[in-house]
Parts: sequence; structure tokens; C-alpha cells
Amino acid sequence: MPVYKAPVEDVTFLLNDVFSIERYNNLPGFADATPDVLEAILAEGAKLCEEVFAPLNRVGDLEGCTRHPDGTVTTPKGFKEAYRAFTAGGWMGLSVPEEFGGQGLPATLNSVMQEFLSSANLALGMYPGLTQGAIAALIVHGSEAIKRTYLPKMVEGAWTGTMNLTEPHCGTDLGLLKAKAVPNGDGSYAITGTKIFISAGEHDLAENIVHLVLARIEGAPAGTKGISLFVVPKFLVNEDGSLGARNGVSCGSLEHKMGIHGNATCVMNYDGATGWLVGEENRGLNAMFVMMNEARLAVGVQGLAQSEVAYQNAVAYAKDRLQGRALTGPKFPDRPADPIIVHPDVRRTLLSIKAFNEAARALVLWTALNGDVAHRSSDEGERRAADDHMGLLTPVVKGVLTDRGFENAVKAQQMFGGHGYIEEWGMSQFVRDARITMIYEGANGIQAMDLVGRKLGKDGGRAVMSFFNEVGAFCQENAGDETLKGFVAPLQQGLGHLQQATMWFMQNAMAKPDNAGAGATDYMHLFGLVALGYMWARMAKAALAKKAQGNGVAERMDAKLLTGRFFMERTMPETATRLARITTGADATMAMPVEMF
Amino acid sequence: MPVYKAPVEDVTFLLNDVFSIERYNNLPGFADATPDVLEAILAEGAKLCEEVFAPLNRVGDLEGCTRHPDGTVTTPKGFKEAYRAFTAGGWMGLSVPEEFGGQGLPATLNSVMQEFLSSANLALGMYPGLTQGAIAALIVHGSEAIKRTYLPKMVEGAWTGTMNLTEPHCGTDLGLLKAKAVPNGDGSYAITGTKIFISAGEHDLAENIVHLVLARIEGAPAGTKGISLFVVPKFLVNEDGSLGARNGVSCGSLEHKMGIHGNATCVMNYDGATGWLVGEENRGLNAMFVMMNEARLAVGVQGLAQSEVAYQNAVAYAKDRLQGRALTGPKFPDRPADPIIVHPDVRRTLLSIKAFNEAARALVLWTALNGDVAHRSSDEGERRAADDHMGLLTPVVKGVLTDRGFENAVKAQQMFGGHGYIEEWGMSQFVRDARITMIYEGANGIQAMDLVGRKLGKDGGRAVMSFFNEVGAFCQENAGDETLKGFVAPLQQGLGHLQQATMWFMQNAMAKPDNAGAGATDYMHLFGLVALGYMWARMAKAALAKKAQGNGVAERMDAKLLTGRFFMERTMPETATRLARITTGADATMAMPVEMF
Repeated sequence: MPVYKAPVEDVTFLLNDVFSIERYNNLPGFADATPDVLEAILAEGAKLCEEVFAPLNRVGDLEGCTRHPDGTVTTPKGFKEAYRAFTAGGWMGLSVPEEFGGQGLPATLNSVMQEFLSSANLALGMYPGLTQGAIAALIVHGSEAIKRTYLPKMVEGAWTGTMNLTEPHCGTDLGLLKAKAVPNGDGSYAITGTKIFISAGEHDLAENIVHLVLARIEGAPAGTKGISLFVVPKFLVNEDGSLGARNGVSCGSLEHKMGIHGNATCVMNYDGATGWLVGEENRGLNAMFVMMNEARLAVGVQGLAQSEVAYQNAVAYAKDRLQGRALTGPKFPDRPADPIIVHPDVRRTLLSIKAFNEAARALVLWTALNGDVAHRSSDEGERRAADDHMGLLTPVVKGVLTDRGFENAVKAQQMFGGHGYIEEWGMSQFVRDARITMIYEGANGIQAMDLVGRKLGKDGGRAVMSFFNEVGAFCQENAGDETLKGFVAPLQQGLGHLQQATMWFMQNAMAKPDNAGAGATDYMHLFGLVALGYMWARMAKAALAKKAQGNGVAERMDAKLLTGRFFMERTMPETATRLARITTGADATMAMPVEMF
Repeated sequence: MPVYKAPVEDVTFLLNDVFSIERYNNLPGFADATPDVLEAILAEGAKLCEEVFAPLNRVGDLEGCTRHPDGTVTTPKGFKEAYRAFTAGGWMGLSVPEEFGGQGLPATLNSVMQEFLSSANLALGMYPGLTQGAIAALIVHGSEAIKRTYLPKMVEGAWTGTMNLTEPHCGTDLGLLKAKAVPNGDGSYAITGTKIFISAGEHDLAENIVHLVLARIEGAPAGTKGISLFVVPKFLVNEDGSLGARNGVSCGSLEHKMGIHGNATCVMNYDGATGWLVGEENRGLNAMFVMMNEARLAVGVQGLAQSEVAYQNAVAYAKDRLQGRALTGPKFPDRPADPIIVHPDVRRTLLSIKAFNEAARALVLWTALNGDVAHRSSDEGERRAADDHMGLLTPVVKGVLTDRGFENAVKAQQMFGGHGYIEEWGMSQFVRDARITMIYEGANGIQAMDLVGRKLGKDGGRAVMSFFNEVGAFCQENAGDETLKGFVAPLQQGLGHLQQATMWFMQNAMAKPDNAGAGATDYMHLFGLVALGYMWARMAKAALAKKAQGNGVAERMDAKLLTGRFFMERTMPETATRLARITTGADATMAMPVEMF
């Protein structure tokens, strides 16, 4: 049975020592999150994930969801109780403003909890995760009536949410979507169409399901400028808030997927279902983007989460499995063989995952803190800078953390040899579950195009310049610090490569946009390497300072520094290859005739 | 339903134009393989794979194998008939010497067929594949009586073979194995023990199953020097060759695996089963290595095979799926959107797979031709050089082609977006099936250690020096050729990196073997890049020559050159990163205390 222990200590190190969360005390909700409260919340969240969510992970994979002839869907055994434990603990509204029934705590805490939940049980964690995304969208774009009707029930978890974008013929290219909305004359609309790949579209965890649906109002312009967003509940809601008639939306079938079997991935049929407009007519994509951006960050976290839980299990196996002897002679001569963690190739593999995980966690929290600033600061300049950061880093977090997260799950599985391929050990599930994170909420190629095609040039490159300035300033400030030399020098080099790549796009992609398209994925990963390297440099600085204070943390901080050193030595050199690929340009890529592929 | 078309044209280009197979006409069996015969054989093999094996691939995945209470195992529907078509066509003995009932054709042809079979249906192809490996081991190490008893039936495919190495507590470290053999006094032995992960251990395709089993003869030395190899048939064989009593070996259970569901992966229980020694007492590993080396090359081919079939399906989808518009404006303005193959990121992904596949196929055939020389040449020097090549390249082919093959299957799946995650499309199966190739026949970390720890220094580095000389000479000879500049220059640089890495090991790994262990995987991939780059340089040269001859092949040869250019520009730069990682050494990797992982 796979193990999982939530990395609480690492999170408190990041929040307290690296990012000094107390500096954010002026933001609403942060003053309540004193170190004691924070620790208590994390401990409680860890317990829920370790003891309630994690034991159901394999159950969910084996059982999957079942659709019955009447269109209802049953989730795997135990999911209902676990979901109830989640809602009873108030986790759904952890960072939802108090006026909507939440606790108003930092959204950063919610990101931490998302990691723990997704490590413990990705398929189960998706039900509340989607609901939180829908809540965020309704808070920003819902009318007062919609907020009043849906938010309290969603925040308490009695009702869950979904996002309905994809149709059989369109996923990425939403301009092609066909679902239509016809005004009923009473302010509501009749929604008709088919949506596919709808996670948590139908299930037995909640009394009602609140679908956010993209559709085209009769007569709307073609393309993306004619798409509106609607709220379509499974059960209509009466004036007094009680549930009324069943709405004309139902689950037509469940998909058979490679993984996340515990989550119901539905084909949803809308057959004149009653819906209400969210936000403005024809501005649906804009409204949905609140949910999508939220979801993209959460999916990045899922990538990290699978990497983390796969790593923990690989470490446990590597300490336990006896096979062969250390190259430098037996380490445990009294045993028939040494545990495989003595082998350099095993250690290298494990450290490459560990070094990624710790930096990725830092990147998530750094970005989440910026999210809190963007939403809660009273200072416009601060809000704008934080929002720039969010926009720029969202595709990087989504794309890089899921690509690497999957790779790492595969590497962790590899540590088990043949046993890794056997389902009973659970490593295959981590790989199969992790695989979806590279695809949903915008496949990673789309994230790369979002970064290169939209985010880089936005506002005259303000966001990316600010990122370069921050990293550059850090390097400059710490250039003289001998103890940080192993971190600053490779970071500086990586930053140089990233700046050269950016410059190359400016010079070569304006006239030939294919040059940007052909380099986008490498650029996204180059950006990710520099961002992760920067996180390591900051963690190293904080670890050195913490170690100097004493308090018996020397061993832990030394391990941190060693892990960081491994990252700088073994992962950062990749920046050179990424740059080299980008600057070869698109000629060879575009010249091949279609029929010769 | 996934598509598959065997790449016959690419194979004939390699055999005729790149490797000039007619130069091998002095070897036994090669003179029979005239261009016409070759083409006829490949066409026939392609047909079997495309029309019989491929349509059963998904069936096998869905149905899997079933073990009945009496220990018998049923394979998926249609497998029996397909296997019969294979044996009826004489494919099992394609390259087996005529004296044992085979056709004596080049083993190189068998490698080609292995690729086609593994692309079409990996799980089904494993049954004959293991049989061929067992045949090879028995030819080299079996006594006359054993050869007479088993080989004819195996070559005709009436009986299949297996290899039994792994036990629950030992896989890589065979020195720990416990299965025991007690002499029966009549020349036979009673074999007792449990073997796990035995592919094709029990099934309904053949009348008898011939297990090759590693076990320890009573009183044998501990460790690897006390292991012997035995042949243990499922049914004992009477003097007249007819089947006798059921032997004391049975399938205890089937494993539930991530993929290759159509192949029965068995726990095999030996309960005093009667077996006969193959080769010398206590030299069982030596005898088994014939089968393992054969199998390692075949598994490398399987990696390529999954990459190829996944690629073909991704191309078909990319030409068909309409989504978005080309960055340079609509390419099909009359359609609602352009096919996604217009997008640079999609093309980049597809080309990276294609460029690998074509070079990997060349590497396989180059190595297979060396195998034929090693086994068939009458010249001792030629045999020795070819054998050196085989020893050096076997871990590279196995490790690199399977690591990349899996990565490529993942990339191809990514082209399908959400549809790639749905089992119906078949892309998930390619990924799940490809995953085993990185693990079995020695996990890839073991291949890397074999290369760095055994093969590099063997015979004073004779094999690796000869490889460097060959590639270096090619670069020198063609340095002045302007048309090859884009190939020779990056190859030369990659070779330089590989030589530096080799030198670094010589200087730093003698005293500290961990430096070799921590760099082994990167070294294996660096070696693979140079080997694949060399294949591209040779293919480019052949393509230019062929194009110059006319004959209407210009378009195909231009595509070849473009694909090669893509490889040199986008894949070769990785050599620098690999070298940088290797030369950081093992310090950071080895310093981490076990409890801090």
C-alpha cells in the first residue's frame, strides 16, 4: 500500500523562512494566519489527506465510477464519506471571503492544501477543486442573485461545481463551439448541446451540481467573440433555496480513461436546460478565464503533487529493497545485499525528483502569495505587479510542473524495477494519474504558446522585464557571497540564456511567428528552469540564515543546501540546450511537406 | 481504431543504400537474400503485422489473459490464430540455421520483423520473441540431446520458450537467487523454487512450453558463481518426441500490469520439476546471457516499435483534427479551422519523434548486421570487431531506444489532447505498453552501468576506441563536403563531448567509482545521441547520393535530409548538457544522508 506524508515542515520553511509570510500581515486574512494558526491548519489538513484521502486512492483506481441506466453516477466506495469529512472541516471555504461563508484565510493556504489533497488522492481532490474554481468565477462575475443562490451552498460543499467548455469537435479552439442558448423571455436561457470531458459532471457526493457552461446565444457573432457563460444547475433552485425540478442536463456516458478513474469524466447532454447568464453577453470566455486560470495553477500543483507522492514511495522502496552492493564495498555486510539507495544511479534519480519538488513547491507558494496580493492588496501598484507575475507564471507553473511531475512519477516508478509495472504497488497509478495534468486545462503546448504568444509581449513586456529585474537583482546582491556562489553563478547563467532566448524571439519572431511557435515549448521549460533555479537560490539563502541561528536545524538545512546544489549542478545545465534549440529557428520544422510526415 | 503501416521503404533504403547489404554476400545466408527476396519477405511480413497482428492489439489490452483454477491460461481472442499464422509462415525460424529447421536468412531480417511485430502488437509479439531467444541459447549451450529434443519443435513454433530468472527477492542481483536443483541420479535434476515476472510462462498458443530456468545445484557456491541453467519443459518429452507426463511446474498466478495485458506474466512455481542442465554446472549466467543479450536488443527494438506506431497515429490525427489557424494565416480558409499539423509546436513534436525513429531503425540494423558478422563471418578479426560492437552497443540500444521510445509514445499521445487520455483511441495503450521496455531485461539504470562499468574498459577499451575511430574517420572524410556540413559539424561536436566524458571517467572514476555510477545514465544517453547522430550523417550521405541518381526519389530523399537536419539542430545540442552533468561528479549525489531523502 503506497505511503504518503504531507510535507508540512517544508511548507512552513517556505512560508516563514523563505517568503516571510508575516510581511503580508497588512492583507485581509493574513493577520489571522499567525504561525500557530498556520501550523494547526496544516497539521489538520495533513491528517485529513494522510488518513482519509490517501487510503482511498487505490480503491478509486480499481473501482472507478459507475453510470447507471438512469444517468446517475456512483463514485468509488468511501469517496462520499471522505468528501463529507472535507466539507465538514470547512476546507471548501478556506480562502473564500467571509461574506460568502468562507474563512477568508490566504489563498496560499489553499494551494498548500491542494498539493496535499492531490498527492493523497488526485481523483477525489478534483471534486472540491473544481467547485473552488467555480466559486471563484461566480464571485467575480456572478450577479447578486446568482451569488446569493449558489455560493453559500457551494462554499459549504453541499453543492459542487463543474466547468463545461469542450465539445467533440473543439477543445483548444473554443471559437468553434456550437452549444446554443435561447432566451426564455424570463431572463433565463434554454441551453442545448453536448459537452465532453466534463470532470465531476455527475456524481453522488453532493445534493446539487452547478455547471458553468459556455454556449452561444442565438444570433451571437461567430468565433470566440460570441460565447457566453451560463450557470446551469442539475436541480433548479426554488425561491426559498430548496431544490426544485430536475433540469434538462444529464450525463450521457462516462469516459474510459488511462487514469483518475475515481473522477467521473462525463459526456454531458444539455437538452434545453435552463441556465442563467454569468457576466456579460458574449464575454463568456473572459468570465470563464477566472476559473481557468485558477484551475491552471491548481493543475500545476497536481503535477508537483504526483511527483511528491511518487517520490516518497520510491524512497521507501529504495531504503527497503536489498539488491547488489555499493560500488565502494558493502555498506551492510551483515545483510544479504545493500538497500538500493546506496547506488549512485538510484540516488541521482531520487535527488533529481526531490530537487524539483522542493523548488516547485516554492514556485507554487511564491505565485500563490502573488495571487493573494493581486486580489487583496489595497495598493494599486502592488496589485498590478502581482497580477503581472500571476499572468506570466501561470503557464509556466501549469506546463513545467506537469511535464516534470509526470516525468518524475515515471522515474520513481523505475526505482521499483518490475514491481513498478505491477498495479498492486501503486506506482503505475501515480504515472497514469499524473499523465492527465499535462493535458487538461489547456495542453502544455497551449501553455507554451500562451507564454510566448501572449504573456511575453503583454503591456510592452512589463511582466517579463520585472521578472528579469528581480532575478537579476538577486544575483547582483548576492554575487559577493561566497557561501551562495554555487547557486548564484548557475542562476546568472540560466538567466542569461533566458534573456538571450527572449531577445531572439524579439528579433526573429515578429516577422516570422513560426519561429516563436517552434521554440515555445523549449522557452517555457527554459523559463521554468530559471524560475526553479531562482527558488533554489532563495531557499539556499534562507537555509544558510536559518542554520546560522542554530536551533538544531543544521542537519535539515544542510540537506536543503545539498539538494539545491544537486539542482544547480545537474538540472540547470539544461538551459543551454533549450537556448540552442530555440535559436535554430523554425525552418526545418516548417519545411516538411504534410504528406512526407 | 489505431493504424499501422510497416515502414518497409525505410528499411530497404537502410539495407540497400545506407548499409549496402550486398557487401555481406560472403556471409552464409546473405547470398540468398537478394534484393527481390528481401522485398518479398518484408512485404509478406508487413502484411502479417498490419492485417493479423495489429487488429488484435486493442483486443489483447481489453481482454488480457485469464488463469483458470486448474492453472491453465487463456490468451485473448484471436491470439491463437494469429500465432498460428506466424508459425505457418515460417517466421519463427527465419534466421535459425537450416540444420535446426530454420531458413538460415540474416538475423538482421529478424530484427526488422521484430520491429514490425512489436509495433503491431507488442504483447502478442513477445510469445515468439522469447521463443527465438530460447532457441538461440539452446543452439549455443544445449547438448546434442537437448538440441535434438527441443529445437525442431521450437523452430516450427509448436513449442514456445521462456526465460526464468527473477525471484520475489531478486531481480538485478541474481547472486541472491534461491531456486534449487537436486540431481535425480539419472542426469536430470529436480528443480524447486518460485519465479516471478515470467512472460509467456503459461498460455494456450503452443503444445508445450520450454522453460529456461536459473537455479542453484545443491552445494554450489553462493553468489553468481553457483548458478546453473536448466531446461524444464511443461510436458516431459518421450523418447520418440511425443509429449509425456505433465512436469511439476505450474503458473501460480498472473500479474496485474500497467500494460502488455495480452501477454501472460506469470508467477511460476517449480515443485521438484524435472530439468536438464544447459551448458556447464555453475556457468548458468553465462549461458543465459546469450538469451539476455538477444532479448536486450529485441527490447530496444520494441522501444522503437512503440515510438513508430504511436507516431503514425499522431500524424494521422494531426492531419485530421481541425483546431485553430496557422500562425501565418489560414491554410484551409474553406474549412472551419486548419488541421493541427499546421502548428509549429505540433510539427516540432512529430518531427522529433520521426527523426528519432529513423535513426534508431538505422542503429538497430547496423547493430544487427554486426551481429550477423559476429556469428557468421569466417574471418576471426571481423568476428571480433563485430562482437566488440555488439557488446558496446547492446546496452545503448536497449537503454536509449526504450527511454526515448516511451517518451515519444507520450509525446504522440499528447498530440491528441484529451482524446489521448481516453482508452478508445489507443494512444494510452502505446504508452502503457512502451513503459515495460524501460524495465524488463535489465532496467535501464542497469544498462547504463553495464555500459560504463563493464563495456567501456573491456579489453583495454578496444570496442569504444574502435567506435570513436569509425565516427571520427567519417567526420574527417566528409569534413570538406559542403552538402554534409550540417551533419558533420554537430556530429563532430557530439563526438567531442562523448570523448571528453569518457576521458573524465578514466581520470575520475578509477579512484572513485561513484563518479561513474552517478554519470552512467547521462553517459548512456550521450553515447546514444552520438550513435544516432552518426546514423543520420550516414543516412544523409546515402540520401544525397540516391537523390543525385534521379529515379524519382528526390522528394523522399529531401524529406530524409530535412528530418536529419531537424535531428542535428534540435536533438544533438543535448550532448552538451549530458557532458556538463557527468563532469559535476558524484559528490552532491553521494553526500545526502539516507534519512534525509
